[in-house]
Amino acid sequence: MMKNAVGRELPERIGSYVVRPYAGPEATPALETPVQSRRIAGRARPEQSKLLPSLTEAIRAVGLKDGMTISFHHSFREGDLVVGQVLEAIRALGIKDLRFAPSAVVNPKGLSLASFVQDGTISRVEASGIRGELGDGLINGAISLTQPAILRTHGARPRAIEAGELSIDVAFIAASASDAWGNCTGQLGANPCGSLGYSFVDARSAEKVVVITDTLVEYPCCPASISQEYVDYVVQVEQIGDPAKIGAGAARLTKNPRDLQIAREVARVMAASRRFREGFSFQTGAGAIAIACTKYLGEEMKARNLRASFALGGITAGIVDLYDAGRVRVVECSQSFDAVAAKAILDRPGVVEIDNAAYANAFNKGNFLNHLDFGVLGALEVDTDFNVNILTGSSGQMMGGLGGGPDVAACAGVSIVALPILRGRTPSVVKRVFTCCTPGETVACVVTQAGIALNPRHRNYQELKEDLERAGIQLTTIEALQQLAESLTGVPKPIETTDEIVAVVEYRDGTVMDVIRKLKE
Amino acid sequence: MMKNAVGRELPERIGSYVVRPYAGPEATPALETPVQSRRIAGRARPEQSKLLPSLTEAIRAVGLKDGMTISFHHSFREGDLVVGQVLEAIRALGIKDLRFAPSAVVNPKGLSLASFVQDGTISRVEASGIRGELGDGLINGAISLTQPAILRTHGARPRAIEAGELSIDVAFIAASASDAWGNCTGQLGANPCGSLGYSFVDARSAEKVVVITDTLVEYPCCPASISQEYVDYVVQVEQIGDPAKIGAGAARLTKNPRDLQIAREVARVMAASRRFREGFSFQTGAGAIAIACTKYLGEEMKARNLRASFALGGITAGIVDLYDAGRVRVVECSQSFDAVAAKAILDRPGVVEIDNAAYANAFNKGNFLNHLDFGVLGALEVDTDFNVNILTGSSGQMMGGLGGGPDVAACAGVSIVALPILRGRTPSVVKRVFTCCTPGETVACVVTQAGIALNPRHRNYQELKEDLERAGIQLTTIEALQQLAESLTGVPKPIETTDEIVAVVEYRDGTVMDVIRKLKE
Repeated sequence: MMKNAVGRELPERIGSYVVRPYAGPEATPALETPVQSRRIAGRARPEQSKLLPSLTEAIRAVGLKDGMTISFHHSFREGDLVVGQVLEAIRALGIKDLRFAPSAVVNPKGLSLASFVQDGTISRVEASGIRGELGDGLINGAISLTQPAILRTHGARPRAIEAGELSIDVAFIAASASDAWGNCTGQLGANPCGSLGYSFVDARSAEKVVVITDTLVEYPCCPASISQEYVDYVVQVEQIGDPAKIGAGAARLTKNPRDLQIAREVARVMAASRRFREGFSFQTGAGAIAIACTKYLGEEMKARNLRASFALGGITAGIVDLYDAGRVRVVECSQSFDAVAAKAILDRPGVVEIDNAAYANAFNKGNFLNHLDFGVLGALEVDTDFNVNILTGSSGQMMGGLGGGPDVAACAGVSIVALPILRGRTPSVVKRVFTCCTPGETVACVVTQAGIALNPRHRNYQELKEDLERAGIQLTTIEALQQLAESLTGVPKPIETTDEIVAVVEYRDGTVMDVIRKLKE
Repeated sequence: MMKNAVGRELPERIGSYVVRPYAGPEATPALETPVQSRRIAGRARPEQSKLLPSLTEAIRAVGLKDGMTISFHHSFREGDLVVGQVLEAIRALGIKDLRFAPSAVVNPKGLSLASFVQDGTISRVEASGIRGELGDGLINGAISLTQPAILRTHGARPRAIEAGELSIDVAFIAASASDAWGNCTGQLGANPCGSLGYSFVDARSAEKVVVITDTLVEYPCCPASISQEYVDYVVQVEQIGDPAKIGAGAARLTKNPRDLQIAREVARVMAASRRFREGFSFQTGAGAIAIACTKYLGEEMKARNLRASFALGGITAGIVDLYDAGRVRVVECSQSFDAVAAKAILDRPGVVEIDNAAYANAFNKGNFLNHLDFGVLGALEVDTDFNVNILTGSSGQMMGGLGGGPDVAACAGVSIVALPILRGRTPSVVKRVFTCCTPGETVACVVTQAGIALNPRHRNYQELKEDLERAGIQLTTIEALQQLAESLTGVPKPIETTDEIVAVVEYRDGTVMDVIRKLKE
């Protein structure tokens, strides 16, 4: 056993997985090796149609075999209808032992990912998160994989793919419109999902690429997010997803007064910072607090007559409103978080789709996050070291995904974790998070309804402290917040685990931030 | 010595270059090996600026060394001001023996590429063409390279790069606007060149990428054709090029009655084809005949009330006019051929910039050319086998570049070579072209002012013959055209060459179509 830089005990190996312990947000240099590609040159001829009549035909045509790696994007989130259709077709063909490597796991109604693990179709999982039946099954021991699930941030996934750690055999890419030769987009068609930012690296790197659409358009599809140069086959299905479920309710402005209060405080913190100036940049995200925060931020911008240079990441209708109001010059959209955002790219020249690697990959020649002034982050728990848990809930169950949170925290000049100090009978500010996802030193500030705490270990601590004090914003300490939470809820019973590791939490640089162990029965 | 499929005598090796003889337009299967990338993962930090004060600093920073390969795009054509500035800076640093691998050679006033060969800065050249002092110097023996120049079509260059045959160490990319972190475009700024289609593969594949701009814009540059993810350094210079010189006069409609007549005949041939229907596609190019042809084609489209699905390749103001008139749904622009076209992408949603590999690379999973109905091609000579010469002139001198011509001919349903039967005292329709660039079997039709000849060996011969006869278009034979030309000019004296090979003409699949030998003194 060894301890990493956030004090987590880690074995040196987990099966065949060699643990590189997390050593600091910028401690790992990029590998000085060429970027890898599994893509095979092809020779598509005009007379060869790429259009196949069924997913089954496509799976046969790409030569999917036992043990291979398949990928998907999760842009439809709970509205996704492609993952299930593809897995059902694979199951029917009897192909087993696959590595399932979507950008994140989705849980649309009627899809039981656990059942594909149970019957051996899937034996390994690598994703941003494994929320739902799949993750809970692993943690409870109801199902098991041949290797621990590897959880990666949105920035870490393209890094791992290009480093050769995650080589994709077949990428299945849901596109809301495609021509028969694979020029495709998420912006047109019956069911737009907006940005296909997650899939760019898959298209570039996977050995085989299958585009799945419900809206076949005349050649050439324009705009085309992904080019025919990368696509082997196209399959038309009845429906690829339901855009109304992308936001899953999150897109509505909350009426919860506690969340509104936290959101207002976050916007106040931002407005008090010296970085809140003409041309600043921000990412607010998609939770209830984040959406309210975007609204309050817009009010602060209007009051000061400021225009942001860019808004980044997962984009909501609220951000599109700010763009339309002239408050944001460019919206760099790696994911569309609701149906409004999904349609916004098409007719707004400054709302643009970006490659997820351009958004957040730490091991390329630069990304948008490197230029971010403010990042607002949700969390399940934060501890007195400012470490953040965005994966596991109060009983150890799988609640979230890593998403871009750890990437945003590492880069934003002011990274703000916004959360209530307790949820129900469970404290959210604790002595030690159950699962460490985001290292505390990358968190500048925690905002709760009970006070704002700055992190003395953050690189911009002095700057932010001065700015907030000048604005008359009262500060507390993370310890005080933790004690207050505990005084209201009592000390929660610790979650007991076995030694068996079911998931590895990788940091953006490929080191291990934490592991998730099977719970004691 | 061996003979390839167009009857050209080739050695088995030329120095270290191993000759793979051309065997037919589709005889070479794509390599079933992963696509190569020389790109090295980086780790750009927010505080690290990519902006360097001079080209000299950038050349030092990328570690350019003797023997390395450097690349450029040629989108500014004779208006380019970047190639010269970079080469001067390299010369001043004393770096020698470079492989110079631009998408094509440019000859702006005041730039002597030959001088860089003479002093050893450049010892190898790979490009679409080497027109001008450089090519003529090689052919006349005034200068020499350590290996024959390798000439590749626009589709062959990305293929060679991804096959690992042309590995680029440093790509110097002229961009008319860039932010300080390398998000850049050819569409904004003081001197727009339009599409950066040639440079996409360089950005993706080169080990180091330097963006050179004269218009530094605030972060983030939007639109961004090339992403910061691929860019190591940015250098601001006074001027990168002169957009007025991109067209170099070619953009004006010719008043030459012979060229107008040929253009009208080409449009008639197209209009008579069954492929001239709603949703057809075309590429007309940028020569004097081509520009006139675009105009006449537009008139035919209007008369029949047709709309094309797409226009492709190098785009001129005339194509933009057709788009604006609603006659073309999408303009897929791999190169902007004049200042109007250079600006058209920015505010026309259906005029889009495409990767040169998506345009023409035969060894990917599909390209736009595969879907082309009509391709109009210029030529210096065509022979009675329908082989086309687009490289060497009547005295053997270097006159043109391969461009996309051989790619277009291979793919277009109806490939039309348009040329006058003689130029001055030189016949253009001959018994045997001096340099074979485009294999005859890929040419459907030759249009001259003296008649139209169909190629019985072309795959769509029967179809086109029926269509033209139905339209009452009179046909002649290529032999008749050749004899007519010869009767007017006399038999030209053959060009005498030595055995020394100074350039290799590669086909799109990497096989050798022909070689160019040093002329006898």
